[in-house]
Amino acid sequence: MFERIRQVRRNARERVDLTRLIELCRQLLTERGESNSVAIAGHAIERYHRLSPEALDRFFELLAGEFDPDPGEVLMLAERYAVSRVPANLIALSRAAEPPRQELLRRLNRGAQGTATIVAMRAQLLQRLRRSPGLAAVDADFEHLLSSWFNPGFLQLQRIDWQSPAQLLEQIIRHEAVHEIDGWNDLRRRLEPDRRLFAFFHPMLPSEPLIFVEVALLPQMPRAIAPLLDRQDPVRADAQKMKVAVFYSISNCQPGLRGVNLGNFLIKRVVEQLRDEFPNLKTFCTLSPVPGFAHWLSHVAEPADPRLKPAVLRELHTEMAAARERLAFDPTAASPDDVDQQRLARLCAWYLSRSADPQAPQPDPVARFHLNNGARLERINPLADLSRKGLKQSHGVMVNYLYDLEEIEANHERFVNGEVSAARAVTSLI
Amino acid sequence: MFERIRQVRRNARERVDLTRLIELCRQLLTERGESNSVAIAGHAIERYHRLSPEALDRFFELLAGEFDPDPGEVLMLAERYAVSRVPANLIALSRAAEPPRQELLRRLNRGAQGTATIVAMRAQLLQRLRRSPGLAAVDADFEHLLSSWFNPGFLQLQRIDWQSPAQLLEQIIRHEAVHEIDGWNDLRRRLEPDRRLFAFFHPMLPSEPLIFVEVALLPQMPRAIAPLLDRQDPVRADAQKMKVAVFYSISNCQPGLRGVNLGNFLIKRVVEQLRDEFPNLKTFCTLSPVPGFAHWLSHVAEPADPRLKPAVLRELHTEMAAARERLAFDPTAASPDDVDQQRLARLCAWYLSRSADPQAPQPDPVARFHLNNGARLERINPLADLSRKGLKQSHGVMVNYLYDLEEIEANHERFVNGEVSAARAVTSLI
Amino acid sequence: MFERIRQVRRNARERVDLTRLIELCRQLLTERGESNSVAIAGHAIERYHRLSPEALDRFFELLAGEFDPDPGEVLMLAERYAVSRVPANLIALSRAAEPPRQELLRRLNRGAQGTATIVAMRAQLLQRLRRSPGLAAVDADFEHLLSSWFNPGFLQLQRIDWQSPAQLLEQIIRHEAVHEIDGWNDLRRRLEPDRRLFAFFHPMLPSEPLIFVEVALLPQMPRAIAPLLDRQDPVRADAQKMKVAVFYSISNCQPGLRGVNLGNFLIKRVVEQLRDEFPNLKTFCTLSPVPGFAHWLSHVAEPADPRLKPAVLRELHTEMAAARERLAFDPTAASPDDVDQQRLARLCAWYLSRSADPQAPQPDPVARFHLNNGARLERINPLADLSRKGLKQSHGVMVNYLYDLEEIEANHERFVNGEVSAARAVTSLI
Amino acid sequence: MFERIRQVRRNARERVDLTRLIELCRQLLTERGESNSVAIAGHAIERYHRLSPEALDRFFELLAGEFDPDPGEVLMLAERYAVSRVPANLIALSRAAEPPRQELLRRLNRGAQGTATIVAMRAQLLQRLRRSPGLAAVDADFEHLLSSWFNPGFLQLQRIDWQSPAQLLEQIIRHEAVHEIDGWNDLRRRLEPDRRLFAFFHPMLPSEPLIFVEVALLPQMPRAIAPLLDRQDPVRADAQKMKVAVFYSISNCQPGLRGVNLGNFLIKRVVEQLRDEFPNLKTFCTLSPVPGFAHWLSHVAEPADPRLKPAVLRELHTEMAAARERLAFDPTAASPDDVDQQRLARLCAWYLSRSADPQAPQPDPVARFHLNNGARLERINPLADLSRKGLKQSHGVMVNYLYDLEEIEANHERFVNGEVSAARAVTSLI
Repeated sequence: MFERIRQVRRNARERVDLTRLIELCRQLLTERGESNSVAIAGHAIERYHRLSPEALDRFFELLAGEFDPDPGEVLMLAERYAVSRVPANLIALSRAAEPPRQELLRRLNRGAQGTATIVAMRAQLLQRLRRSPGLAAVDADFEHLLSSWFNPGFLQLQRIDWQSPAQLLEQIIRHEAVHEIDGWNDLRRRLEPDRRLFAFFHPMLPSEPLIFVEVALLPQMPRAIAPLLDRQDPVRADAQKMKVAVFYSISNCQPGLRGVNLGNFLIKRVVEQLRDEFPNLKTFCTLSPVPGFAHWLSHVAEPADPRLKPAVLRELHTEMAAARERLAFDPTAASPDDVDQQRLARLCAWYLSRSADPQAPQPDPVARFHLNNGARLERINPLADLSRKGLKQSHGVMVNYLYDLEEIEANHERFVNGEVSAARAVTSLI
Repeated sequence: MFERIRQVRRNARERVDLTRLIELCRQLLTERGESNSVAIAGHAIERYHRLSPEALDRFFELLAGEFDPDPGEVLMLAERYAVSRVPANLIALSRAAEPPRQELLRRLNRGAQGTATIVAMRAQLLQRLRRSPGLAAVDADFEHLLSSWFNPGFLQLQRIDWQSPAQLLEQIIRHEAVHEIDGWNDLRRRLEPDRRLFAFFHPMLPSEPLIFVEVALLPQMPRAIAPLLDRQDPVRADAQKMKVAVFYSISNCQPGLRGVNLGNFLIKRVVEQLRDEFPNLKTFCTLSPVPGFAHWLSHVAEPADPRLKPAVLRELHTEMAAARERLAFDPTAASPDDVDQQRLARLCAWYLSRSADPQAPQPDPVARFHLNNGARLERINPLADLSRKGLKQSHGVMVNYLYDLEEIEANHERFVNGEVSAARAVTSLI
Repeated sequence: MFERIRQVRRNARERVDLTRLIELCRQLLTERGESNSVAIAGHAIERYHRLSPEALDRFFELLAGEFDPDPGEVLMLAERYAVSRVPANLIALSRAAEPPRQELLRRLNRGAQGTATIVAMRAQLLQRLRRSPGLAAVDADFEHLLSSWFNPGFLQLQRIDWQSPAQLLEQIIRHEAVHEIDGWNDLRRRLEPDRRLFAFFHPMLPSEPLIFVEVALLPQMPRAIAPLLDRQDPVRADAQKMKVAVFYSISNCQPGLRGVNLGNFLIKRVVEQLRDEFPNLKTFCTLSPVPGFAHWLSHVAEPADPRLKPAVLRELHTEMAAARERLAFDPTAASPDDVDQQRLARLCAWYLSRSADPQAPQPDPVARFHLNNGARLERINPLADLSRKGLKQSHGVMVNYLYDLEEIEANHERFVNGEVSAARAVTSLI
Repeated sequence: MFERIRQVRRNARERVDLTRLIELCRQLLTERGESNSVAIAGHAIERYHRLSPEALDRFFELLAGEFDPDPGEVLMLAERYAVSRVPANLIALSRAAEPPRQELLRRLNRGAQGTATIVAMRAQLLQRLRRSPGLAAVDADFEHLLSSWFNPGFLQLQRIDWQSPAQLLEQIIRHEAVHEIDGWNDLRRRLEPDRRLFAFFHPMLPSEPLIFVEVALLPQMPRAIAPLLDRQDPVRADAQKMKVAVFYSISNCQPGLRGVNLGNFLIKRVVEQLRDEFPNLKTFCTLSPVPGFAHWLSHVAEPADPRLKPAVLRELHTEMAAARERLAFDPTAASPDDVDQQRLARLCAWYLSRSADPQAPQPDPVARFHLNNGARLERINPLADLSRKGLKQSHGVMVNYLYDLEEIEANHERFVNGEVSAARAVTSLI
């Protein structure tokens, strides 16, 4: 009974918050609001943070419904510009075609905690996007603005080590997405002098890393992940002499920045930073998972590649069948059998480099990221990750991608045209 | 002879720089360039800084010619959106209607010194805008982007005092535009504990103030500027007890940011900062020049204001004639005559508050700035600025504008509707 | 066999290090060494850090033997000064009577890591002091110099919180000596906004806390320690309203600074700091262990206090006997019996305030520290620390000492004269 | 009349301040004061800063009279120590022989602004020392303590440049004692990238430089000062390629630190710092004035040096007579005559290297400083300083001293033994 009354009251309060928030948003876009916009934005942000999930649903619907450009006006101005390309016509058209939502977000950003709120808002929007496809244009506006504001020209690269604030380190532990960090002692090993951890920060979010990468300095390109994660692994005193820098983990911290390109810029900036600090470094590479391999192997019945001769295709199908049979007994156990491992490596090379027809997108998300960045597929390593997750995702196979700054433009272009840059060690497997 | 050869060589080199710069710009917008955009942007920026004034002319022409949206495509998408307002249509339209120049600038910003370069580029563009009106759409793109990037949500307020780096203080001396600073000792008085100097900074330009304001803490609203500028003026030890904060000078430092609203936000942020530091402050006001007054008085023959009764208008005309006659002998000398000064004050009140018809814009640029910010015209002070410049611009009259955060929204709205908010002390003059 | 050869070689190398170190020390004190003392000190410090424990023994013996003042010279100068107190005689005498060791240490301090090395040296010296009483004068020189250099005028108070470097927090965990910190989560509760942790730092040892104190902000003086140590204890959002600041743990981090007064200064500086930050605070007190109580109760047969009447003494002896009998069953279990607890409180009041004759020193080290600082014994809390250690040391009793800055001079003087300042709540127990 | 009353009142107030200060000093040394010493020291410091010059006189007298060691006690303990050198006897003796003034100063240092006050106190003491020789023992105590506290192990080297706070730069302008800095523009040239200015700071006086040195990076050892001081001197863009670092000015900022060795340590630390930053540097030298040369030439009738053969001495006397005659016309004009200049160089070499008998101290203070630091007299430069001051002090001659870290120990030892290390270029002049 009392519970119902409380619920009614809460609902009423929420309706007030939502109504007030919408009023403030409208006011922000008016003439009258302009002179006081910082204060109004501040109030709007406060209200926003009080919304219940249901009120948030309605708020985003409203953003989608009310702040679109006026179709008639845009059409009229587009016609005028098509007739005469004078600056005035273009200026009027560009202005009219930009959804007023973007200006609304720019003004919201003026309030205290504005940037952090907009990033959080995007994260909440993304959770609704799948079930409310009508929000797609709203999301496009967020992505457009955030890409402009979180432009690499505005990001600050910062090294994180044992001198960093505990508050930051705690976030690193929380956000590590590739190879889980098991507490402070585990983290500590990854911050020793033969390791590096770099993160991008935005000046408006100084205590929140956006994305970070973990690097190990080694004498040669590694074939397995376990030694890198072992907290007992002895610290190399001679970090200055190492030849290889391995990017063994890269994690995003801000779901609200999905679609904003950060990883590509981070890796290249870190390569330059490391080259300055360690002039002996010759090789910059990754040790990366192949998350889609096991699924491909078990689900893709008979891959077809129009570029391949029938004999070659037949061989591939035979190999796949053999591998499936071997793995059938226990797909998460690693076979010590050399033949098996050799076969897995070969199939993985197929999977990553030519499994699909050139028009289809690269099926593996990690491969897509690095190849699109301009990296080269350098080596396939069987028995590289024997963790439960590693065996399940890729039967233990991991891959080295190589970043050679001289080649990344050409590699990227090749990738965009459906071709995978790969070292001879990989192509010879096929 | 040799000189000509050198000239030829220089011309050749410049042509190379320009050609290469344009290539780099095109490359930045291609797929291939994307993976390496930070490096390409860096090269483009280097080339840009080597351009001669003539090469710059051509570069801006090219920006205007080549990076416009495609009229046919925009028209087609506008039609499609007018027919069906689904998100996909809107997204496609917004993208197509945004001039590719904006994306070009966002990518240039990724290079080292990107932001500083773009601000400098805008300054050079503005110098060409008057004689090349065809650049207006290019300028609109710069202004649009810079307004987004120099959004007050991204600016940092910093106090500048005698502990600040000499390099910063030197810039303050150079950029002070209202009341010239005559060397380091003069500056020093303006940084003593009974004064404040605040500037906005952008995180990417940490050693360049964008705009700054000078504040004096006083027991009451000041009637004249000389004591504030006198470097012998004794420092008030009891700054904490002062009731009035006077904004006596505000100067922009970055010509490239013209049109980006900074002053409005700066004043309001400083008001809040001062309120925190000095809880005894009751009044926040300016002591401002009236740069258009003398010109108006001598040039505007017989102002007409449809809202006024003929008798009132006649009185105004009589007063103006009398004032002109008195000033005719030496327009830059201040009359000690009370009647004269009273008359000047009255005419200045007319000038600022109702000289024009409500549809016409406010003629005085300083009044326009403060009234549009939501300030109120509080007092007219004759004999307030007896410097050569003060006498010439406004026969020595200065004005206090009052910032009352409770009223600024209403004042601003009134101003937008052609009405000037003024204190009784001013309205009673008329 | 090989082991023996290695041992012989190591011994030889050590002998070389020791011999060279002593040469460098002698050189530092010569004229020739003076012009290059920073470099020589640096070499000496390097050698020092290579010494084996045995070589250290010999090094300290040498410090004791070789760098004493010359008795004949001092005696001659003392006679001269006794005859004529002119400045020259005094200056000569003071110089001659100061052991040259002090100048040696001052010069060693010039080398890289000088201060840290001297503090570490003292720690190693102290470990040898008990078994080598001949080192007492060497130790007195260290203490004299370190007291001058770690003078509170040179120390910096720093708040430590979750924004502090992990490296510092790790040291806090390691050095907490009163109430053990069980890992990072446990530490975190002690750094929340309703807690404070302050440490003293020396400018030459910026990453090593010297001593730290943990403070809780509470509505009233606490009677038990468990809630303060419970990491689930809800964080008080209203820290600003709290009336009581409780110092619940104070720990030294540098054994080499034994005898250098730090705790007294730390507590008083923190009181001032907290008064500034929390104007509502009225009471500054501790919640302290009574480490010597249980031992006293079980070992001191029949305390005699000449100031007491025989009847009172008899009562005390009866009470002690009763308590012993009750505790005999299980000295580490807390009795829920009110009478027992009341009796323990009374006996603890006896123990701390008048157990001994006024000439004898205060037997409890914690009481000695706080009473000597000028605090007042404010309340005895039975059942306050039911941890194994708390029951064993003091049958669960803890004590509040009160710091009232107005009274500390008088309290300290009283304590020096053998009297304990205690609140009525304590004296009335007896 | 009123003036007299005011005077009487002021005198009374001053007497109170002095009396109270002395009471506080006594209290600081008592048991009772110890527990509250930071507060008491703070009060004493406040009173101290209010003393009139006369009250200061009396305060220092009192410091001299009251805080001496007890002669009887010291004598007794010296006898005991002479009989038995056990640690206890030594500890007691050292304690008793140290003037209680030192402990007083250590306790004063605990108060706010303690260190700054003690340095200022010493400066005021030094002003009185000549006319009150009885204060010599007090001064010795200050020097002893300050030497311990301003030990190079506690000093921080800081580069000062155009990014430094104006407040610091202002002090540099004020304290430059060798080659006056004529305002901010003059200073600026000395901070350009081909120059360096380094200062020592003490952590307790973070905004007051203690001593600073100005360095120019040059292709070769300079022969004249004017180009270094010319603010139009073009900045060398290739500072990294320079071979020679010239220390062309060194100035003390704190008169209260007289006798505390700072310059020697500063120069050597700067040499190391420069070696790290500019690996191409081969030579570290000075361009120094010879302030006593002109006085020696005109006043020392016939220098005698027992080490010299009569013929050599005769030649010297002839040369001196000739020089005097040539200079008689206008001692502040530089002769363009090569013979004259050659003669001046030769005489200056005599003056600096062997003018006096080896037992007598080096007469030139600048030479004394550098030679005692272990530098070598490298070259005599006639016509090197044609400023009024330069001509008057040394007929325009300046000198290069060379700092070769490999040789400074040997050079210093030689100097202490009465010998001057000089390059062949100098010795060959004689």
